[in-house]
Amino acid sequence: MTQVKPGSTIGIMGGGQLGRMLALAAAKLGYRCHIFCPEANSPAFHVAHEVTVANYDDEAALTAFARAVDVATYEFENVPARTAEIVSRETLLRPGARALEVSQDRLHEKDFLTASGVKTAPYKAFESEDELHEAIKLIGRTAVAKTRRFGYDGKGQLMIKSRSDIDKVLDITKGAPAILEGFVNFDREISVVVARSASGDVAAFPVGENVHTNHILDTTDVPARVSEVVEAKAKVMATRIANALEYVGVMAVEMFVNDGAGEIVVNEIAPRVHNSGHWTIEGAETSQFEQHIRAICDLPLGPTAARGRVHMKNLLGKDILDFDKYLSDPKAHYHHYGKQDPRPGRKMGHVTWVNPDDE
Amino acid sequence: MTQVKPGSTIGIMGGGQLGRMLALAAAKLGYRCHIFCPEANSPAFHVAHEVTVANYDDEAALTAFARAVDVATYEFENVPARTAEIVSRETLLRPGARALEVSQDRLHEKDFLTASGVKTAPYKAFESEDELHEAIKLIGRTAVAKTRRFGYDGKGQLMIKSRSDIDKVLDITKGAPAILEGFVNFDREISVVVARSASGDVAAFPVGENVHTNHILDTTDVPARVSEVVEAKAKVMATRIANALEYVGVMAVEMFVNDGAGEIVVNEIAPRVHNSGHWTIEGAETSQFEQHIRAICDLPLGPTAARGRVHMKNLLGKDILDFDKYLSDPKAHYHHYGKQDPRPGRKMGHVTWVNPDDE
Repeated sequence: MTQVKPGSTIGIMGGGQLGRMLALAAAKLGYRCHIFCPEANSPAFHVAHEVTVANYDDEAALTAFARAVDVATYEFENVPARTAEIVSRETLLRPGARALEVSQDRLHEKDFLTASGVKTAPYKAFESEDELHEAIKLIGRTAVAKTRRFGYDGKGQLMIKSRSDIDKVLDITKGAPAILEGFVNFDREISVVVARSASGDVAAFPVGENVHTNHILDTTDVPARVSEVVEAKAKVMATRIANALEYVGVMAVEMFVNDGAGEIVVNEIAPRVHNSGHWTIEGAETSQFEQHIRAICDLPLGPTAARGRVHMKNLLGKDILDFDKYLSDPKAHYHHYGKQDPRPGRKMGHVTWVNPDDE
Repeated sequence: MTQVKPGSTIGIMGGGQLGRMLALAAAKLGYRCHIFCPEANSPAFHVAHEVTVANYDDEAALTAFARAVDVATYEFENVPARTAEIVSRETLLRPGARALEVSQDRLHEKDFLTASGVKTAPYKAFESEDELHEAIKLIGRTAVAKTRRFGYDGKGQLMIKSRSDIDKVLDITKGAPAILEGFVNFDREISVVVARSASGDVAAFPVGENVHTNHILDTTDVPARVSEVVEAKAKVMATRIANALEYVGVMAVEMFVNDGAGEIVVNEIAPRVHNSGHWTIEGAETSQFEQHIRAICDLPLGPTAARGRVHMKNLLGKDILDFDKYLSDPKAHYHHYGKQDPRPGRKMGHVTWVNPDDE
């Protein structure tokens, strides 16, 4: 595979905090970053060598961007297929279009996971009211309806509890392709951040245990409170998924765990660095961001062991203003994404504690 | 003192690797960096929000730069006094002009250190041949002659070994102010990187042991092979110097140690982050770069303990091309400064090993 040597230029589509932290990790290894993002004054622009402010359907801008970089990557999974195609004509795109295709559509994602031998919640696609009733017959009424495309942070989904919710579902999906997912009984949510390099080497980070509040990640803890068997099984599943996709880069696999049954169900995959991997910056031997750069540049992958017990907490909205508190705590690592407006619920930064209970 | 909050803009004079690593550390805390440097395409430009390419005597450019930032700092001690004055008229300059004044002139530096109660090599200023002979009478002939200003990496200095070297000295100094330093018998070179915040809090990192090759730093090891008493004494001396200067920021104090006598002599001070502190990026609880940003922004200083035994090696010239070797080593942290031309002897990057002998 083509190695992209330190000193080369990496193109990143998306200028949010993930792009920013990718650019910082790339700089440590001597790479220059060129950020492509429609929004002026994006967080990643502050640490980039070059920026392009243009829309993802601007073919001329995309072509010029792709020609200016030695490899292109992205920080979000909703990169349009056409955008990916334009960029791949001119440069290496890692991860490739296949990862986007699978992760952008909940039905393709579930079909792919099932075909890879990985367990998911029971699911059935529907568009019309008739098909929804058929799906309910198959899955049962304790289920969640989700649009197939462009859902995130709980948007575009509704839990069905009673017969009257069926109308609400049809109101949300409006005949757009959707799926009905059976409800999964689980004790905890975990995620595995896994890297696969262009040469096919794979390395998974230790499993993180996530707590979501209002559908937004609140905290990640490492190690997760799961058995050694579950820990090992989760890593094997993530590795299998990365290999089946011939994936290049870092990806996150979100899973539900039923402790009693020792059962793991894959919820979704994110073909990018992920909020649930932020703990790796100080908490692991290699950060997920450096690992992604190593993987897409076909450098050797770094070691993934945790440096101890790690706790990561997102700072939303005005939480970011408590910097004096966090910077006074000798066990805390405070991260501020450089965003100016601390709107309620906006991801403004995070804090990571490594071995917080040690003396 | 004035606190400069995360989200503000930091101005950095100098665009080399030190400015680059300062900018990376500042970004983690949410600051935007504006780099002022005469050379286009400087390493720090790749990770900066704004850059100004102008000379250090360009008053209009300096004034505009100073007005655009919330605090200004520098990565090199040869910032001209007039430059510092222009910048301080418009913004906070940290560290201040006093640190530059003392460190730019070897005679002022030695006088200041002596007045602070810190031991230095015996020294005597000279300009003419007569004064040189007088200095030799006082110091002895085993001595080093150095120009008072603008010496670095062994430039502008000559060791006197025989009578014939006296002519060579006069040839080098050409009547410019110089000093003669008595030769110091030492077993090892150490340095203390110390931070003092705008509020006057002081924190010293563990002592590093340095090996120079051809007057350029080759390696730093932590802990240094010195007694606990020497370790403590060295930190006290560095703290005393920082306090005496009412210093704000990170500074490095280079010292010579005579093991047998348990004696420490201060060689020189650098009013900036320093190559001998690069080990702190992965090897200490806080990096010297983040510590400098915390100090000049008047944030709480971070903890300074080492994470174990640490070895740092500079990568000069083509050493930087061995990235596959270093990235394959699970104990190595490879840093590439983004410079394109690996000229012999040029500082291109460094590698840090943390606890390299652990399993």
